[in-house]
Amino acid sequence: MALSKKPVNGMKDILPEEMQIRDYVQQVIKETYRNFGFTQIETPCMENIANLSSKQGGENEKLIFKVMKRGEKLKIAEAKDETDLVDFGMRYDLTVPLVRYYSNNANDLPSPFKALQMGNVWRADRPQRGRYRQFMQCDIDIIGEPSNLAEIELILATTTTIGKLGFKNFEIRINERRILKAMAAYSGFAEEDYDTVFIILDKMDKIGLDGVAEELAKEGYAKESIDKYLGLFKGVEEAGNGIDGICYIAKTLEGFLEEDVEKNLLEIINSVNAAKQADFKLVFDPTLVRGMSYYTGTIFEIAMPELGAACGGGGRYDKMVGKFTGQDVPACGFSIGFERIVLLLMESGFTVPMQRPKVAYLIEKGYPADKLVDVIAKAQEERQAGKQVLVVRMNKNKKFQKEKLAAEGYKDIVEFFNN
Amino acid sequence: MALSKKPVNGMKDILPEEMQIRDYVQQVIKETYRNFGFTQIETPCMENIANLSSKQGGENEKLIFKVMKRGEKLKIAEAKDETDLVDFGMRYDLTVPLVRYYSNNANDLPSPFKALQMGNVWRADRPQRGRYRQFMQCDIDIIGEPSNLAEIELILATTTTIGKLGFKNFEIRINERRILKAMAAYSGFAEEDYDTVFIILDKMDKIGLDGVAEELAKEGYAKESIDKYLGLFKGVEEAGNGIDGICYIAKTLEGFLEEDVEKNLLEIINSVNAAKQADFKLVFDPTLVRGMSYYTGTIFEIAMPELGAACGGGGRYDKMVGKFTGQDVPACGFSIGFERIVLLLMESGFTVPMQRPKVAYLIEKGYPADKLVDVIAKAQEERQAGKQVLVVRMNKNKKFQKEKLAAEGYKDIVEFFNN
Repeated sequence: MALSKKPVNGMKDILPEEMQIRDYVQQVIKETYRNFGFTQIETPCMENIANLSSKQGGENEKLIFKVMKRGEKLKIAEAKDETDLVDFGMRYDLTVPLVRYYSNNANDLPSPFKALQMGNVWRADRPQRGRYRQFMQCDIDIIGEPSNLAEIELILATTTTIGKLGFKNFEIRINERRILKAMAAYSGFAEEDYDTVFIILDKMDKIGLDGVAEELAKEGYAKESIDKYLGLFKGVEEAGNGIDGICYIAKTLEGFLEEDVEKNLLEIINSVNAAKQADFKLVFDPTLVRGMSYYTGTIFEIAMPELGAACGGGGRYDKMVGKFTGQDVPACGFSIGFERIVLLLMESGFTVPMQRPKVAYLIEKGYPADKLVDVIAKAQEERQAGKQVLVVRMNKNKKFQKEKLAAEGYKDIVEFFNN
Repeated sequence: MALSKKPVNGMKDILPEEMQIRDYVQQVIKETYRNFGFTQIETPCMENIANLSSKQGGENEKLIFKVMKRGEKLKIAEAKDETDLVDFGMRYDLTVPLVRYYSNNANDLPSPFKALQMGNVWRADRPQRGRYRQFMQCDIDIIGEPSNLAEIELILATTTTIGKLGFKNFEIRINERRILKAMAAYSGFAEEDYDTVFIILDKMDKIGLDGVAEELAKEGYAKESIDKYLGLFKGVEEAGNGIDGICYIAKTLEGFLEEDVEKNLLEIINSVNAAKQADFKLVFDPTLVRGMSYYTGTIFEIAMPELGAACGGGGRYDKMVGKFTGQDVPACGFSIGFERIVLLLMESGFTVPMQRPKVAYLIEKGYPADKLVDVIAKAQEERQAGKQVLVVRMNKNKKFQKEKLAAEGYKDIVEFFNN
């Protein structure tokens, strides 16, 4: 029986053209982040299944590719459910593994630890167009920095990178988990309802203020709470989505909001605006929720005009290290939407700047071995001199071969004939 | 309950120091192979389990990490054995996925197709020191080139890369599957015994000629065959392990060996020796077996003096594409032992050449936010000017912090005090 030629359902083969762009994007990301003092690390692609199922990963925990036990440990006949059969799982993000890594290696790491990770993650999502079950994530995290210096450096590093990749006019939207909660408290929602309220709020960009009001009403919340809640968003809109919006919300929520929140956000905005090296706006967005339950403070997201959706995001998660070590360590991270950036570049017809002159040697069939030696030696010389030299046999349809080579960037073609 | 801090059994966290070396080695590999016209590609880390269990992978097929079916397709109560529970598996090498990839995408790929792959593979080996269950492989393959131009380019590209990484005095050992078989036939072994004979022959470097003779005798083979067989190896030793050895074996095996084998090997050796750009010897080694059953012609291996073992290898496998497409396409590949090279570099105290000046800014606690803006803006300027700038809070134990920073390469440290 012939074997299956297709990749597994929902994952993809990466062709040379896309691979070039992916490699280029990775290089720019790596170089820029290094300039900010981030250090690259790697964790295994698998984690113990208990670590992945500890409620840190939210909805993603439903999408884990699970790895079956092996050898004597696998007892199918006795198995009652999945947990009896599985010991490892594929990571669904880079944050849970990073925190485990930090907990395991903290003694050997600088403090604060500025980590850069670039690696694949896996999610058993229903396969759909443009969304794959294996995809690359690029995260930077600062572990051990309690102050907003972390947020400022993360936002500057990420935006500088995105700017270097040629993107302009994008937005960084920022909010605070504590503002989210204070707004809900101020409006009179009960604490146990916050999650439901935030899930509805998260749809604001799709269904608008009226849609949010409608869905909140459907859940049975008091009209008074809903009106008060929506009033806050309108208030920010009137005040403006910058510093004024933050001042308005801090003043309005007085008594519900910790006092440091306003100062903290204003410092971030002022510092980023003073030092930024890319063409973007940093805006306060009180509707920003970010799904993951592990965030404890600032949260942020990249919004691209070219894309209807977010192109990366992150935030502060000061309580996750404690789940591994019993002792909390402040942490904050920013993840670039690598796959979306590659997609945008490919759609825009972006081509990677050529690094070296490319030469193709075409060797006629039957070219004598003793003369081939000289051709290959010549190729080696040219390679050492900094050229990219492809040595291939001349095809029967030479014209077609040369056209294809030209399309691959081999404009300079040298032919070697038998006589 | 606290979560597990350790990586999964048999896999490892990669610390910043090792990661730097890994990244450097990858860069050298990528750049050198690109000069030879190899194009980077990627396949998913998982393959359909049927593709991984098709006898292409030899012993590695016993070591597959298997991925459990999900959702409705997973029926644990009805499952009789593993195959009912599993749909995907983690790749154990890059060759089987490459051939699937080629079969799937041949129309969109150049011909011949020169592929570079760098990626992790997984094998559920018993965990042991220095050997991990997730490790990086770096393969180059040429698909669609029937002539020994493939072997010549693969050996030159690989040795140039290894030379650039600073290794000297290594050996490339070369042999031919057809010579292996002809030697066995000439000696009078039956064809069905070849595999057993080769498995014993493969131990030559450990147990020597006498040990091989002993084990062959234990298997019950005729003394005459064993003597004749060992006579061949002695003959090569006397003739010399270069061109003379090949000429001797070809002459002795006349009638058992295809006529093109000798010419083919001599051309490879002459071309490589004429064009090589690294300090190594290319030697004929009739005891070289290489485990994988898919090899059909030349096989080769890198032997490092620093290492008792091979540090990479490859060969020609002209029959594997046909398993996917029904039509054979010639193919040849060379895999560098990435993990072993990294290990050798780490053990030798190798440090990655520093690319940029590194500066650390130490900010005293309580440094006013309005002044911090200026510090960060200054850091941004220095980064844009090509420096790597780390901005961190000053620790209580500043002396220790500065020592650690110096060890990370931050020799230039600027301090910012409150007054």
